[in-house]
Amino acid sequence: MRKNRRHEDELREVKITRNYLKHPQGSVLIEVGDTKVICTAALEAKVPPFLRNSGKGWLTAEYAMLPMATQERNQRESVRGHIGGRTHEIQRLIGRSLRAVTDLDSLGENTVYIDCDVIQADGGTRTASITGSFVALVDLFRKMKEKGICETMPIRDYVSAVSVGVVDGQLLLDLEYEEDSRADVDMNVVMTGAGEFIEVQGTAERVPFGRDRLTAMVELAGRGIRKLTEVQREILGGQI
Amino acid sequence: MRKNRRHEDELREVKITRNYLKHPQGSVLIEVGDTKVICTAALEAKVPPFLRNSGKGWLTAEYAMLPMATQERNQRESVRGHIGGRTHEIQRLIGRSLRAVTDLDSLGENTVYIDCDVIQADGGTRTASITGSFVALVDLFRKMKEKGICETMPIRDYVSAVSVGVVDGQLLLDLEYEEDSRADVDMNVVMTGAGEFIEVQGTAERVPFGRDRLTAMVELAGRGIRKLTEVQREILGGQI
Amino acid sequence: MRKNRRHEDELREVKITRNYLKHPQGSVLIEVGDTKVICTAALEAKVPPFLRNSGKGWLTAEYAMLPMATQERNQRESVRGHIGGRTHEIQRLIGRSLRAVTDLDSLGENTVYIDCDVIQADGGTRTASITGSFVALVDLFRKMKEKGICETMPIRDYVSAVSVGVVDGQLLLDLEYEEDSRADVDMNVVMTGAGEFIEVQGTAERVPFGRDRLTAMVELAGRGIRKLTEVQREILGGQI
Amino acid sequence: MRKNRRHEDELREVKITRNYLKHPQGSVLIEVGDTKVICTAALEAKVPPFLRNSGKGWLTAEYAMLPMATQERNQRESVRGHIGGRTHEIQRLIGRSLRAVTDLDSLGENTVYIDCDVIQADGGTRTASITGSFVALVDLFRKMKEKGICETMPIRDYVSAVSVGVVDGQLLLDLEYEEDSRADVDMNVVMTGAGEFIEVQGTAERVPFGRDRLTAMVELAGRGIRKLTEVQREILGGQI
Amino acid sequence: MRKNRRHEDELREVKITRNYLKHPQGSVLIEVGDTKVICTAALEAKVPPFLRNSGKGWLTAEYAMLPMATQERNQRESVRGHIGGRTHEIQRLIGRSLRAVTDLDSLGENTVYIDCDVIQADGGTRTASITGSFVALVDLFRKMKEKGICETMPIRDYVSAVSVGVVDGQLLLDLEYEEDSRADVDMNVVMTGAGEFIEVQGTAERVPFGRDRLTAMVELAGRGIRKLTEVQREILGGQI
Amino acid sequence: MRKNRRHEDELREVKITRNYLKHPQGSVLIEVGDTKVICTAALEAKVPPFLRNSGKGWLTAEYAMLPMATQERNQRESVRGHIGGRTHEIQRLIGRSLRAVTDLDSLGENTVYIDCDVIQADGGTRTASITGSFVALVDLFRKMKEKGICETMPIRDYVSAVSVGVVDGQLLLDLEYEEDSRADVDMNVVMTGAGEFIEVQGTAERVPFGRDRLTAMVELAGRGIRKLTEVQREILGGQI
Repeated sequence: MRKNRRHEDELREVKITRNYLKHPQGSVLIEVGDTKVICTAALEAKVPPFLRNSGKGWLTAEYAMLPMATQERNQRESVRGHIGGRTHEIQRLIGRSLRAVTDLDSLGENTVYIDCDVIQADGGTRTASITGSFVALVDLFRKMKEKGICETMPIRDYVSAVSVGVVDGQLLLDLEYEEDSRADVDMNVVMTGAGEFIEVQGTAERVPFGRDRLTAMVELAGRGIRKLTEVQREILGGQI
Repeated sequence: MRKNRRHEDELREVKITRNYLKHPQGSVLIEVGDTKVICTAALEAKVPPFLRNSGKGWLTAEYAMLPMATQERNQRESVRGHIGGRTHEIQRLIGRSLRAVTDLDSLGENTVYIDCDVIQADGGTRTASITGSFVALVDLFRKMKEKGICETMPIRDYVSAVSVGVVDGQLLLDLEYEEDSRADVDMNVVMTGAGEFIEVQGTAERVPFGRDRLTAMVELAGRGIRKLTEVQREILGGQI
Repeated sequence: MRKNRRHEDELREVKITRNYLKHPQGSVLIEVGDTKVICTAALEAKVPPFLRNSGKGWLTAEYAMLPMATQERNQRESVRGHIGGRTHEIQRLIGRSLRAVTDLDSLGENTVYIDCDVIQADGGTRTASITGSFVALVDLFRKMKEKGICETMPIRDYVSAVSVGVVDGQLLLDLEYEEDSRADVDMNVVMTGAGEFIEVQGTAERVPFGRDRLTAMVELAGRGIRKLTEVQREILGGQI
Repeated sequence: MRKNRRHEDELREVKITRNYLKHPQGSVLIEVGDTKVICTAALEAKVPPFLRNSGKGWLTAEYAMLPMATQERNQRESVRGHIGGRTHEIQRLIGRSLRAVTDLDSLGENTVYIDCDVIQADGGTRTASITGSFVALVDLFRKMKEKGICETMPIRDYVSAVSVGVVDGQLLLDLEYEEDSRADVDMNVVMTGAGEFIEVQGTAERVPFGRDRLTAMVELAGRGIRKLTEVQREILGGQI
Repeated sequence: MRKNRRHEDELREVKITRNYLKHPQGSVLIEVGDTKVICTAALEAKVPPFLRNSGKGWLTAEYAMLPMATQERNQRESVRGHIGGRTHEIQRLIGRSLRAVTDLDSLGENTVYIDCDVIQADGGTRTASITGSFVALVDLFRKMKEKGICETMPIRDYVSAVSVGVVDGQLLLDLEYEEDSRADVDMNVVMTGAGEFIEVQGTAERVPFGRDRLTAMVELAGRGIRKLTEVQREILGGQI
Repeated sequence: MRKNRRHEDELREVKITRNYLKHPQGSVLIEVGDTKVICTAALEAKVPPFLRNSGKGWLTAEYAMLPMATQERNQRESVRGHIGGRTHEIQRLIGRSLRAVTDLDSLGENTVYIDCDVIQADGGTRTASITGSFVALVDLFRKMKEKGICETMPIRDYVSAVSVGVVDGQLLLDLEYEEDSRADVDMNVVMTGAGEFIEVQGTAERVPFGRDRLTAMVELAGRGIRKLTEVQREILGGQI
């Protein structure tokens, strides 16, 4: 049995608070068990050089952790003077995942900035960031539509993310930190509301895995995603 | 009349939530009006080079803002690759203020890390950081005492901070952002529970000020500090 | 038909030159079509802090491109002053892949440095880096065994990597640059000689993909890996 | 008695040499006891982004120390790769102090660069920098007026700065290094020729201080400032 | 006798492979004994700020080593976060040497990027870089002329470089690493095909040297240069 | 005729002020015409890693310019965040030149720090730095000998440096800035008191130069060095 009597194929409790901050157009606090991330979405009227004069927009994401979000204090990347490999990897993943459901062509020459700041970490911070940012993004787009900046919502589908892993030979959904640190295999899956894959990243941390294991993990992730999509749909109160 | 019918000599509503995070020994969310800061206190068993083999401890502070804590998105200092002048100035102030009431000699060769992360900014983030961090620090020290790391509480007095300013010729206590940006004079005052000064920083933003103005500002700050000390005393539930 | 009359499920020509450089204990030039990477393996008698006094070893990888390896000159990361996100991502992948087949416990407190320097890029530089580095690593381990630094070869299995993708609706093995830049889905797969997965990274660049597509891609990658393992086995001339 | 039979309320000898360097339009060497600072003022025909197309000018200051200005060699900030907190704090103070008496609106879209380089340090380098830079600034403005770049002198009043402190319970004016390092309270005061405050920064280094102490320190600083203003007036030979 | 029965006034074997890489317009692999450098020349349609709107072009050079080019692994400058003094010195020398024979005025507002990447180092990497880059540069200029970007070849003469040194009291031409590390005097000479000097850099590593020694070194270098010019002429197959 | 009726083979006036600063053991202000450099020498009880436990010492040099030392303000390297190529080149030259006459073996495990800070630049800052630092170094060594840190003076000979150049076809000694900027050939020569070379660096800025020119330049430099050695001897008042 997992902590809090959780089943192997059960998500931790997911709670999304919309309009968490005063300034950004879209902002949520997402809590997945003890993992807590503030996700914001904001628009700036500029695009990176490769899109200038293209009429198209862009979406980019940044990710960081508070120093005391983890058990051991982690040094600020501003103090170290550069962004580390793990941070780069995560923020690139968040950006790709949200761009995959966004209609960049209809954004105009604007850039959406997604900021994911982990307040408290207990495993699954990158997947929670994706799931939460999607809600902040929809809120931003709704405001843009209200103000007439875009005519239709520039979004094609829901997107959310979840981890699966193999711990002590058992397939588990949505790993918390203590499970993650003991996992033999660790996989992050990003999927659309329609149930298609945007990203599959599976890593054998200790023991290589076979084709069947891969299939089972992907299937379990799919079940988690369906529940996360429901949570998003409910909190957003109707059609995106 | 100020926003929310606030009087000239009235603080904004102050709310301090203790044990806000799971991992650090001391952690609070302090809300002063719309300004929200997470303050944490954590101990590490090391000291800076100049204290090695001295038997004494140290306390240091770091300060940062979420990119969307402000109206305009502010670039992460990790992305810029270095910490800016304003951040340096603020975190040095926080550190000095808390060291002034801490008995560093009885800490042993340990360093207290204070982290102040501004979630939402509406003026007075540095003074809220000091007021909130003090509570987190006491919580850390109480845990250290419980565990027998120190015999007595290594703290000598309360410390809190508040801003005063001159806006349109009027003396105001605890400026919010909109007031601060119009102020002719801006002063931050850090005081102990006993009503003595730890730091006085007054700046003529537009118009130099005379001796009487200085006296009046310092007096008004003192009244604000007395109320903040009460808030701290109440939330800490008895003797520090 | 693909360039050079290549079939959809056909690898580009793979050529591995051992002992390419004079100084490092293991060094190869791997050529996969027009992609050319120098891979070296070298031992240093030190470990990262988290392994000190553990008796265990470590393996780390670095990856870079010559400025003119690509069609457009890419700026040196030494000139930019930091390593970019893509580089971080790739060198972390190379390191994880090789560690997965290395017996770090029997290395002693030594670190293996893998360096992958792309001389010429035409798609698949990260997968070529993994496939080539494996050969350099075996050469290093053979020299270590000869010199009695380790008693048995600290390696458990072969490892190699290949890309698969969906271009114009067609499933293709081992994408070259021109194909990669048009791909709807792009997947990198790292597998052992025993046919198990070490890493699966699939990304929908444009169009989300379904379960069947995932299965087909993974299966096609497996066929590529089997051929790469044969190439490695042959060039290494017998048992690893 | 203080060193060199100095009284408690007595400044060290102040010597200002104008036109100390050949290239900049304004340049002085200021010597306050053994503290020696080269201060220069130069004009560049550009403004920071927030002032473009505003018709207004700007003034900014930079501060540094020679490595051997202090007793122990201090590492160059160019070698460390970034500017430290103390430097940031000081150069922001110098900039604010001079801007407070400068008519930025009548500068046109030009920026004044103030550079303060400490050749030898013996306490009070930041206050000497302000006092000396003022003279360099007036020299620059006089040349600008001669050349017809501005019609009237864009300066409103004198500005100078001095430190006061409490050492062994005694109130002292203009601390030298040895006194400063033993001070319980340390205050820097920046005032105009008219005797009004631009900046008051008091810090309890060891012992919090009361209202009376604050009043006495501010009063003593005022007396020091009056003498510094006289020195400036004399060296500048007449009306600013 | 030197290694490989080389005479004191004899160059190591020099081999230049043209069109070594696929993408850049000019690219060679130069091998001087065991020293191997990839040199490329590429054109970009921009110039540094000081040449904008001048109608003139520029040539700049960058130099780097693979980490395992040397016996001991040398840390990547991208990882260190900055370019070291030795690299700066070498790439400035390469740039100056090639600019001295290039007609920058007839390049238009274009910049030639020379990249020298040392694959394997055995002494004389900077001189090999100059000798090799010259060939890559001519190949670039020939392509520019073919495409009509310039009417005549913007080059005035050949340029190549060689080292001489004093080892154990003997004057030696073209030092390899082992000799270089024992040399009392070390000199790098850059000359034109016409036999005139572009750069002479002689350093007494251990023992100061007299006028006669200087004359003899310069004379010996001249003989080496004549042979290198022949090698360049032959590989370029006719008139530059 | 040159400025100030100077002859072609005439040095500018050289003035060296010893004990220019209070803190360092050796410090001079050297003035060569309008070029002014503060040179200091200081000892620290540590050596770089490659000399630990060798019993030998080291000497290293740093060089910088004040922002307003030049006609156009040059940006601080601390603000740029790194040291530029020119600075690297110069400080390496200064270090090599002084090490060549220093007996590092008898220094013990100590490092001499030479700091050269250009207060005002008018050509020849690197050569003035070498000539001035030598005097500061002797003063440091004399103090070390007095204190018994070393038994004999760890110095073997005088060292000084001078520039020569070809301007409008004429050979000139000791170029000032205006001449240097028009020079076709520019050479810096470092020599010992015994008249032997430590460093010869000649660069054809515009026009390659022949063997005779080289000989003439070197001869003229030698004459300049003899005079500089006399100046050093006189100011040092007797035997080094």
